[in-house]
Amino acid sequence: MAHSRQLHLGAFMRPVSMHTGAWRYPGAIHDANFNFAALKRFAQKLEEGKFDAFFMADHLGVLNMPVEALKRSHTVTSYEPFTLLSALAGVTERIGLVATASTTFEEPFHVARRFASLDHLSGGRAGWNVVTTANPDNGKNFGYEDQPDHAARYARAREFYDVVTGLWDSFADNAFVRDAESGIYFDPDRLHVLRHKGAHFSVRGPLNIARPVQGWPVIVQAGASEPGRQLAAETAEAVFGAENTLEGAKRFYADVKDRMRRVGRDPGLLKILPAAFVVVGDTIEEARAKRAHLDSLVHYDSGIHSLSGALNFDVSGFDPDGPLPEIPETNASKTARDRLLEMARTQTLTIRQLAATAGSYAGLAFVGTPASIADDMEQWLYESGADGFNIMFPFLPEGLDLFVDQVIPELQRRGLFRTEYEGTTLRDHLGLPRPSNRFFD
Amino acid sequence: MAHSRQLHLGAFMRPVSMHTGAWRYPGAIHDANFNFAALKRFAQKLEEGKFDAFFMADHLGVLNMPVEALKRSHTVTSYEPFTLLSALAGVTERIGLVATASTTFEEPFHVARRFASLDHLSGGRAGWNVVTTANPDNGKNFGYEDQPDHAARYARAREFYDVVTGLWDSFADNAFVRDAESGIYFDPDRLHVLRHKGAHFSVRGPLNIARPVQGWPVIVQAGASEPGRQLAAETAEAVFGAENTLEGAKRFYADVKDRMRRVGRDPGLLKILPAAFVVVGDTIEEARAKRAHLDSLVHYDSGIHSLSGALNFDVSGFDPDGPLPEIPETNASKTARDRLLEMARTQTLTIRQLAATAGSYAGLAFVGTPASIADDMEQWLYESGADGFNIMFPFLPEGLDLFVDQVIPELQRRGLFRTEYEGTTLRDHLGLPRPSNRFFD
Repeated sequence: MAHSRQLHLGAFMRPVSMHTGAWRYPGAIHDANFNFAALKRFAQKLEEGKFDAFFMADHLGVLNMPVEALKRSHTVTSYEPFTLLSALAGVTERIGLVATASTTFEEPFHVARRFASLDHLSGGRAGWNVVTTANPDNGKNFGYEDQPDHAARYARAREFYDVVTGLWDSFADNAFVRDAESGIYFDPDRLHVLRHKGAHFSVRGPLNIARPVQGWPVIVQAGASEPGRQLAAETAEAVFGAENTLEGAKRFYADVKDRMRRVGRDPGLLKILPAAFVVVGDTIEEARAKRAHLDSLVHYDSGIHSLSGALNFDVSGFDPDGPLPEIPETNASKTARDRLLEMARTQTLTIRQLAATAGSYAGLAFVGTPASIADDMEQWLYESGADGFNIMFPFLPEGLDLFVDQVIPELQRRGLFRTEYEGTTLRDHLGLPRPSNRFFD
Repeated sequence: MAHSRQLHLGAFMRPVSMHTGAWRYPGAIHDANFNFAALKRFAQKLEEGKFDAFFMADHLGVLNMPVEALKRSHTVTSYEPFTLLSALAGVTERIGLVATASTTFEEPFHVARRFASLDHLSGGRAGWNVVTTANPDNGKNFGYEDQPDHAARYARAREFYDVVTGLWDSFADNAFVRDAESGIYFDPDRLHVLRHKGAHFSVRGPLNIARPVQGWPVIVQAGASEPGRQLAAETAEAVFGAENTLEGAKRFYADVKDRMRRVGRDPGLLKILPAAFVVVGDTIEEARAKRAHLDSLVHYDSGIHSLSGALNFDVSGFDPDGPLPEIPETNASKTARDRLLEMARTQTLTIRQLAATAGSYAGLAFVGTPASIADDMEQWLYESGADGFNIMFPFLPEGLDLFVDQVIPELQRRGLFRTEYEGTTLRDHLGLPRPSNRFFD
């Protein structure tokens, strides 16, 4: 069944995969974190599959975890996003390139400049994943003893966004006349000096970069919290939801688009792309077996750490083969916690079994055949749970190759996904308009 | 005559050239500031010429100048260095990639991370041009009303260097065991947490990047001031001198290498590469005519601004065709000022003539045939005025192509320059050792 609506697909990438066990999976590229040839191959394969974007997840430090879990983690290190995505810009032609940059630990002038530069380098393919950086250990790499609190981080993020987008508008699109005869390189009346002074930033401007090819790089966000949703409704053009069920996703979708209407934005100007872990098999049983194999590669020391983290309570001292003890209430995020507690109760799982679940991936997953995966995606699109997905590959390169070689053609057959890029920029791929310049016609 | 010593050559790049008139020169690529295909072509041509490094000059803002000069400047905007050099890393194989990063307006964790990432992406070709950012207008883009003074900037730079190099040493070279069987990704005993607390920075670490391919990216500096020379003697591995005469260059060379001995460093560990503007012709007359043509393309409005800047005194209100008035003493940099005052006195030049000189390039220049240029370079090398040069091309692409096609073969014939890269890293090209890790064997 062909829809007029089509899916948008991003690849939510870590070089080895997001999954803790992935580097031990057969065929894994163990050193992919610093293997540019591997990353180049992945990006080019995604481009062959006509993906909207390559999205690089990021951390601003080595994550704080017990050494027994830490030493087993392949996500401790990897390329820095601006440098990696710029290198990929040089070896790809069409795919969008979304980098994460923190509004808490960066300067808006640098961020505006790097994204504008990446957008020029890539011919209009840059996107900025705006994050406020929740992990409290990151601040210690930037002189903060304590992490700024959630509300303060979001207030700063909002002003940071205003400064960055204002800097992108420094030059009118037609400012550069480059008339060698008269010797006029640009029209100074088409240059705006921002002179921003706010609660968090004082930034004179102008940006020393011509207006980006896309006007502004695409604004991407993940935040599922209350202020995160509001910031997304006000500013974002693509959002990664974190809902696990279609019902939850539909509520999230409706809520964010509603908030957009309330702030006067057209809901079509934001694409909601839940993160989805996709395991492809020739049969559903084979796909499930692959996932079970992958999950079995998560060491207990990693799993128990993840379980304690999700519960916000250290359970590493209890009998692995006994039941979960009484877990105290917590102020931390409850989504994963409640899911694990319900599993423990309804399935009478041991701590070891719960650790295996917590240490693997516990979010939205499509595990099956190309046809069953396409069915799921079609339903989410059709029922307004999503405008597309941000795909997490369980292991690389196999998981990525199977998706491109088998799932993409199935989606294309159903009219759910492009068979060729229709435009050249990330905005073109996402169906987003080029923003006008606030200072110039 | 073959020497055992060989020249090292960097390319001191701005996309259109450093020369104010270059964008108006016949054949110029007017839009090179944001034309990646042009930059890629330049980098690949330099690599064909076996250059040690591509060096990207940088500013952290639009330079402050009167609008009549500003609107004629092609250096107002261009790519940001990390993004540009990373993109070039993907399309080159051997040439070194030196990016400018400011110790005054950046965070050491970000800088350590980006250079380490560029070094991994490029297979060990990154260099860091350490600058303290003298232009007072740049601070206004980062919340500073006044620029930190010279001494404060250098004190911060020294500590910044300690933090960055300490972060690069976070992981031992052999930390990553990636043993899929046992599930150990890295040896936690081979990870060092920096825990730096100093006058300017508090940075916990570790860096979330494996130790760079080169151990540390090559440390490059330009500073010719007293604290600049001292910082170079203590930390730099390549320095761009700013001397115009061989006599001056020999004094600078001897002084910096002497300072190295006094701080206990082997003088061979630092390469002195004066910036040199090179114009190639079939005859010396043709080369001079090219330069004169180029200089004639600098508009009076640009030249008079440069002259006022160099004199630190506004002369734009005086009769262009009259003599220079009495110029008051100044505390600003005197090198260019004294040279212009001497020219005005000895050659009885008008303000217009002096503006033409000031608005063009007034530093070290080799203008002649491939043979005469090779003679000059040979003499500077032989008499210890330089270990090589950082070449500024007067106009692009012609100036660069002629250098690679004509001057490089002449240097190679004389045994003064490599005919093939002998190693793969920038350290290999420069003959610099890989630094040991201060925390691990």
